[in-house]
Amino acid sequence: MAATKRAPAGAAVLRGDITAAIRNAVMHELAEVGYGRLSIEAVARRAGVGKTAVYRRWSNKLEMVLEIVSGVAERSVPMPDTGSFESDLQLLTFIVSKALQHRIASQIIPDLMAEAARNPKIAETLNKALSKHQRAVGETIVGQAVARGELPAGTDPEMAVDLMLGPLYWRLAVLRTPIDDDYLEKLSASVTAALRAGSPAQ
Amino acid sequence: MAATKRAPAGAAVLRGDITAAIRNAVMHELAEVGYGRLSIEAVARRAGVGKTAVYRRWSNKLEMVLEIVSGVAERSVPMPDTGSFESDLQLLTFIVSKALQHRIASQIIPDLMAEAARNPKIAETLNKALSKHQRAVGETIVGQAVARGELPAGTDPEMAVDLMLGPLYWRLAVLRTPIDDDYLEKLSASVTAALRAGSPAQ
Repeated sequence: MAATKRAPAGAAVLRGDITAAIRNAVMHELAEVGYGRLSIEAVARRAGVGKTAVYRRWSNKLEMVLEIVSGVAERSVPMPDTGSFESDLQLLTFIVSKALQHRIASQIIPDLMAEAARNPKIAETLNKALSKHQRAVGETIVGQAVARGELPAGTDPEMAVDLMLGPLYWRLAVLRTPIDDDYLEKLSASVTAALRAGSPAQ
Repeated sequence: MAATKRAPAGAAVLRGDITAAIRNAVMHELAEVGYGRLSIEAVARRAGVGKTAVYRRWSNKLEMVLEIVSGVAERSVPMPDTGSFESDLQLLTFIVSKALQHRIASQIIPDLMAEAARNPKIAETLNKALSKHQRAVGETIVGQAVARGELPAGTDPEMAVDLMLGPLYWRLAVLRTPIDDDYLEKLSASVTAALRAGSPAQ
C-alpha cells in the first residue's frame, strides 16, 4: 500500500487515513452509480478530500478502480488451516458466500464484469487478480490435505477451487438465490468426495 | 411462439420469418450496444421491418429482451441421453462451454447480469428462466442415472447441475480463460464421483 511505503526524499508522505477514506468512497460510488458513471470528483467529495489527493495516489480512474477492487477481492478470501480439508472448505465456502451476498459486492461485481466484456484491460487485470489468489488458496489447502494424507498426491488445486467457487458464484451472483448452511455443508462434502476419487495420475 | 399460435378472429397473423428476423436483430443489438442503449428503432432497422412489427409482438423493450434471451438460454442447453451419466455430463459441459464462449453470448450475459443487479424485474425473470431449465435438465439426467443404478436414489439434481455449470461459468464468463477437452472430461468425472459418494439419506 502506498501509505506504508517510506516516502522518497522530496516526495509528500501519503496519509493512510486519507487513502482509506478514498478506497471506501470508491467502493460506495461503484455500488451506487457503477464504473461507467463514476467520477474522481464524486469520489473526492465523498471522501472529504480534494481531487489532487486522489491523483497523488492513482493516475486515472481505471487504475484506481482496478487496484482497489483487486485488493478487496484478495483480502476477502482467507487461507484456512482448520486441520481437515472438509472443514477448510466449509470455512471458505461460508466466507465466500457472505462476501458474494454483501450489498456492495453484489452491485459492483456484475458491473465490473460488464465493463470487462467491453474492455480487455479490465478483463485482464481482474482475471490476473482473481486467478493469482485462487491459485494460492487452492495450492495451500490442497497442499495441506495431501500432506495430511486426506487427498491423493497430484490432486489439481485449481479444479478444487473451481468446484467450490463455481457453484457459489452461479447460485449467488448469477441466479441470485439465497443458500443456507446445509447447502454449504453438502457442497464441501461433494467437493471433497470428487477430489478423493481423483486419480493422481492425471 | 406467437407465430405458431392460431390467430384469433380479427387479429393479424404474425409471420414467423419476421419474428425470427427481429429475434436475431435483438441479439446482435444487445451484443453491440448493450441493454441500456438498445432501441426498438435500431432493432426494427436491423431486422428490415417497421417499428409496429416489433410492437405487435412485444409491448416494450424489457419484455422483448427478456422473452428472447430466456428462449435462447433454454434452447441452447439440450437434454442428453447417451446411456451413461458421465457421458451425459461430458456432452452437456461441451455444449454449455461452447455457448458461453460464443461471441454474442459473452457480450450479452455480463451486460444483462449488470442490469439484473439494478432491476429486480430483470433479475427475477432471468432467475426463473435459468432455474426452471436447470431443474428440468438436472432432474432428467439424474433421474436416468438413478434408474440405471449409476447414482444413489435421492441424489440432488440441483447440486448436480450447480457442480457442473458453476465451474464452467466461473472459468469462461468470470475469469474468461479458455478451457480444453481435458478439463471438461476431468470436470465430468469429478462431478460423477461427488454424486456417487453422496449419501441418499440427505
